Amino acid sequence: MTTPPVRGFSTEEFENRLANIQMAMAGDGIGVLLLTTEHDIYYFTGFLSQFWQSPTRPWFVVIPSEGKPIAVIPEIGVQSMKSEFMTDIRSWSSPHETDDGVSLLNQALTECLKASGSNVLGLNKGRETHIRMPLGDFETVMWNLKSSDPNIAIKDATSIIRDIRMIKSEAEINKVRYVASTVSGVFENLFDFADIGMTDAELFKNFKLECLKAGVDNVSYLVGGAGQQGYDDVIAPPAGRKLRSGDILMFDTGCTFDGYYCDFDRNYGFGAINDTAKRIHNAVWQATEAGLAMAKPGNSCAQVFRAMDEVLKKNGALGESVGRYGHGLGIQLTEPPSFTAWEQDILREGMIMTLEPGMIYAPGRMILHEENLVIRKNGPELLSRRAPAELPVKL
Amino acid sequence: MTTPPVRGFSTEEFENRLANIQMAMAGDGIGVLLLTTEHDIYYFTGFLSQFWQSPTRPWFVVIPSEGKPIAVIPEIGVQSMKSEFMTDIRSWSSPHETDDGVSLLNQALTECLKASGSNVLGLNKGRETHIRMPLGDFETVMWNLKSSDPNIAIKDATSIIRDIRMIKSEAEINKVRYVASTVSGVFENLFDFADIGMTDAELFKNFKLECLKAGVDNVSYLVGGAGQQGYDDVIAPPAGRKLRSGDILMFDTGCTFDGYYCDFDRNYGFGAINDTAKRIHNAVWQATEAGLAMAKPGNSCAQVFRAMDEVLKKNGALGESVGRYGHGLGIQLTEPPSFTAWEQDILREGMIMTLEPGMIYAPGRMILHEENLVIRKNGPELLSRRAPAELPVKL
Repeated sequence: MTTPPVRGFSTEEFENRLANIQMAMAGDGIGVLLLTTEHDIYYFTGFLSQFWQSPTRPWFVVIPSEGKPIAVIPEIGVQSMKSEFMTDIRSWSSPHETDDGVSLLNQALTECLKASGSNVLGLNKGRETHIRMPLGDFETVMWNLKSSDPNIAIKDATSIIRDIRMIKSEAEINKVRYVASTVSGVFENLFDFADIGMTDAELFKNFKLECLKAGVDNVSYLVGGAGQQGYDDVIAPPAGRKLRSGDILMFDTGCTFDGYYCDFDRNYGFGAINDTAKRIHNAVWQATEAGLAMAKPGNSCAQVFRAMDEVLKKNGALGESVGRYGHGLGIQLTEPPSFTAWEQDILREGMIMTLEPGMIYAPGRMILHEENLVIRKNGPELLSRRAPAELPVKL
Repeated sequence: MTTPPVRGFSTEEFENRLANIQMAMAGDGIGVLLLTTEHDIYYFTGFLSQFWQSPTRPWFVVIPSEGKPIAVIPEIGVQSMKSEFMTDIRSWSSPHETDDGVSLLNQALTECLKASGSNVLGLNKGRETHIRMPLGDFETVMWNLKSSDPNIAIKDATSIIRDIRMIKSEAEINKVRYVASTVSGVFENLFDFADIGMTDAELFKNFKLECLKAGVDNVSYLVGGAGQQGYDDVIAPPAGRKLRSGDILMFDTGCTFDGYYCDFDRNYGFGAINDTAKRIHNAVWQATEAGLAMAKPGNSCAQVFRAMDEVLKKNGALGESVGRYGHGLGIQLTEPPSFTAWEQDILREGMIMTLEPGMIYAPGRMILHEENLVIRKNGPELLSRRAPAELPVKL
């Protein structure tokens, strides 16, 4: 068992993140930034809690143009939010009959805008984001701001937040490396706890138990597919099907350690696997190799996509249904950017990415591979231990 | 080990849910309803997937005034969405460079509005809801609708959706009963796997392993507190602290079965627990008794709150930081309504609720109880097995 890295981050790490976003805000003329989601708030404050699963209460963090973030949060979260870094915490008893943080939030935003000398409020409006608060309350906050200053402008801050979050520190990389390495070990022993005749519910349960025993915090995401010589659904929960000879079983898991994810899959054959399925498994593995060769600073996401796509096409891919061949990874199971034909983002050092080529090789028969890596100066450092080139088969 | 109930729901159950919402829509003059979140979509379609953890792709379900729901979803989800009930599925390859479902969604909404003869679009704007799609895309959809018909009106549908989801069918109750009963068994054996000297990380891990072994699908939510004669934070993840004599340990967990949650906690003393802590534990237990006595059809949430609050005040509560003494429960860890001083919602048969009185009895020292129940004709049916009146202590 690998020793887990230290939990949390240094105050310096949060100070760096803050300095980066404030520099980007200044460049964009943004006087204050509003954050409403679990992952942005964890990134900029260190506040980590499963309590986000309750939709009852809104949580806000306001980043001023200078000085530390301001947390505007329910009383229940004050104790957990407090840290050497987070000192300005404003709270109310939530849920509240008439004002669930709206006035406190308006006050913090107005205060920061005044201090900044800018009338521009930044928030997430773009791809892969949403505003986590009731739409009615959001409209009230916007209305209040515009009533007090008709010149207030809203600016989409998606790109500046994503550009900063994309580049991971060594402390972040260590967390993903730990969880990816731990889960690699579980995958390597899969035949010890998976067999023909087991239901998918048993297989899912055994896999989760092994991951927890091996040292992950949570098996936050586990999907699987099993079918004769390939599978046709890669996001389904267990449905009661029993594993049988001729099946290829795939597990794709996002386990976490200290709020950081791995996200990769492995394929296993049981009993009578035919040569076509074995050939396709190897073809998708070769596509990953092609992706690895291109995963270095300066290449665009579209270039990496094309390198993988060529291998799959050459091997007779009928198509894919996932929409991309990999993505960013960190405090979310999937983060920007994506390996698609159109994504022009350039790979940079410190980006944690997944390579996830997949192909449908016959109607209802798919094989999907995935690895996790970090972009280093001269190419990728694998965080998951490389899948075997040949499909492992349990006879 | 209890036998788990059958997974999924009958087509009739989805037809009932649809009939209920369409009747409510008609009553409110709503011509089409837009759903964007995991839980509303699971409720009205049966689509259950952990894939929601990826923020990359938006998912939409459109409820027309007559006829079945229309799913407007990424290609990757089509296979899982298909069922006897869900037949109109429109998909696109997502993520998409320029149009991530926006045109398809606009088309479905326009089509349904035309067919309904109404110009009112319903969506969630209220308490405990949010819109799960990029704000920019949401604005585009609204802009497109208003461009094609300037008389389009938006209506908040929060209350009609919540009123229907609040009343659980027997099939829903069976799932919560199974998971609550399974976790009750784990709590009853806690001293077998928890001891002085263990770190909170070990305690969390052991608890998760036991829940999975006992037959829950996921330990989706687990928070805990431990401290001398009481705890001061009830939403924190493990921080490295070792359990010692004089500690009260509390675990609060939301485990799931087939997408349905339990949500309750238990308290345990280790070593030298003083009489005050024991007395307070019993006082909070008595507050739950007072809540149980009031948990019947016709009583308001505020009445149930007051019954519990009186017991806590009489026993010297300095306050609480949770903001309420319980809430609805089902496919979300917390659902409406809440037991607060101001909630006027009336309890009805079939509502699954938690009772969750808690009190701070000294600075930094809190004790919290929680039970799960369903409101029946003559009072509550407990779904969790009742906590012991006296604090269990391991010497």
